[in-house]
Amino acid sequence: MAKIIDGKAIAKKLRAVVKAQTEQLKQKGVIPGLVVILIGNDPASEIYVRNKERAAEKVGVNARTIKYPASATEAEVLAKIEALNQDEQVDAILVQSPMPAQFNSEVIQAAISPAKDVDGFHPLNIGKLFANRSGYYPVANTPRGIMTMLKHEGVALAGKNILVVGRSILVGRPMFALLERANATVTLAHRYTPIDTLKLLAQQADVVIVATGVVNLIQGSDLKAGAVVIDVGINRLADGKLVGDVDFSSASQVASAITPVPGGVGPMTIATLLQTTVELAGQHHDIEMEQAWQNI
Amino acid sequence: MAKIIDGKAIAKKLRAVVKAQTEQLKQKGVIPGLVVILIGNDPASEIYVRNKERAAEKVGVNARTIKYPASATEAEVLAKIEALNQDEQVDAILVQSPMPAQFNSEVIQAAISPAKDVDGFHPLNIGKLFANRSGYYPVANTPRGIMTMLKHEGVALAGKNILVVGRSILVGRPMFALLERANATVTLAHRYTPIDTLKLLAQQADVVIVATGVVNLIQGSDLKAGAVVIDVGINRLADGKLVGDVDFSSASQVASAITPVPGGVGPMTIATLLQTTVELAGQHHDIEMEQAWQNI
Repeated sequence: MAKIIDGKAIAKKLRAVVKAQTEQLKQKGVIPGLVVILIGNDPASEIYVRNKERAAEKVGVNARTIKYPASATEAEVLAKIEALNQDEQVDAILVQSPMPAQFNSEVIQAAISPAKDVDGFHPLNIGKLFANRSGYYPVANTPRGIMTMLKHEGVALAGKNILVVGRSILVGRPMFALLERANATVTLAHRYTPIDTLKLLAQQADVVIVATGVVNLIQGSDLKAGAVVIDVGINRLADGKLVGDVDFSSASQVASAITPVPGGVGPMTIATLLQTTVELAGQHHDIEMEQAWQNI
Repeated sequence: MAKIIDGKAIAKKLRAVVKAQTEQLKQKGVIPGLVVILIGNDPASEIYVRNKERAAEKVGVNARTIKYPASATEAEVLAKIEALNQDEQVDAILVQSPMPAQFNSEVIQAAISPAKDVDGFHPLNIGKLFANRSGYYPVANTPRGIMTMLKHEGVALAGKNILVVGRSILVGRPMFALLERANATVTLAHRYTPIDTLKLLAQQADVVIVATGVVNLIQGSDLKAGAVVIDVGINRLADGKLVGDVDFSSASQVASAITPVPGGVGPMTIATLLQTTVELAGQHHDIEMEQAWQNI
């Protein structure tokens, strides 16, 4: 039976580190400022944004949400982003996805200053990650949170054979880049990967990371004995139950460690967003902070 | 016995297309301008730069080389790049690798305007590629030339299992991104990949692309019957003979198609550099050109 990787507990440790960092910053007169732009009234987004605000407050990050109606124009949001880029009180900006249809998310993402791009979606930051550049730059929070979990669990990555399923710019692509940086051999599979290829690759992988939104895509019989399984999917079944992309009951019989859904990757994402916010504030004000999170 | 993929012949076709494009541009008063910056006196770089100049001249690209002694400072080269970024006659700029030790290639690459970045090494262009952004942006010429070869040879990529060995920013990483864009399932292996993992992955791959500088890294016995093999390596043996990273004699018994060394990938790189130069000139002067190269 696999060890259950407790994302809630790891996220709690990470938030404690972030809180210690905001206290350090406060002594120097800096309160990290995060602005979330929410366009339209997607109920899931509203809940998620409220959770971000609450979590931010608890660790000493000054978060506020700017709301636009679903009828907002791209031009007015771009003008607001430009003002926030210039605003000295703002260290981090994100626009909550999904955006209404009249918005081009590529244009919005590229408008946020790379120095305030807390989601790591600006092409300049993506390019630095993919090119494995030195120096600090923000990286997408879900894959970064997964790296923190893997480190916390003592999962060795160098020389390991890793399968990432799903190639979104939120998860799969930056996940690939972070794992390559850790010297793993990484395969990036996706909707065009034939199912027999997917199963073959999964059976060989030391670590399998799944972010597809397809319920039960990976079963226990697809896994190598002792594999580590990270399930990024959050899918609501007809009966209201939340499940991931991995069949937990069979996979947990074969894996050595596995994240549950809920309570696995999910809690790490917001905690990592706050971590990135605080780092951007430190960068912005040229304050070096202890990288205490590396030791959680 | 595998079909030998004739890079020289494909490059010749590509150059003919590029020449037709420069003639189109000339009618509108535009002569594409390429500037190569060569620092120091590495003999291989000098030959390579001379070849670039000659090939440029033949297709109607105005190429010139600016030479600096090995003792040049980063500051003077950066000042020159800034002047070239502003120069209306210049559409494309590249700094020949390797640079002397006092140069930080990351700083140099990021100094070239993304709009003139003919090597596709600026993090903004790398980020657009990795994020699969829409619109035109330059992409590293060696992997792009390989894509042209694969298209010319009618190699289907969508849904295929592809292994890329070597993860440089010149070849392996952008190759990965281009193959993902073509909907292949791609694994990126490298020096930390254990040899048994490498052989396992190679045996499963429909296409194997090797860019490592390791002589005979891949043998015929490592390949799936009918695989397509692209050998990017150019290694000079003690007896002066040029060989790739793949053992050609055994691999060509198993593969369905294979590039020779020399005469495979090599000729495509300069032809693709000229293609990119002409495209940048078209972008710069807002002239739409036929994408005739897609039909070579």
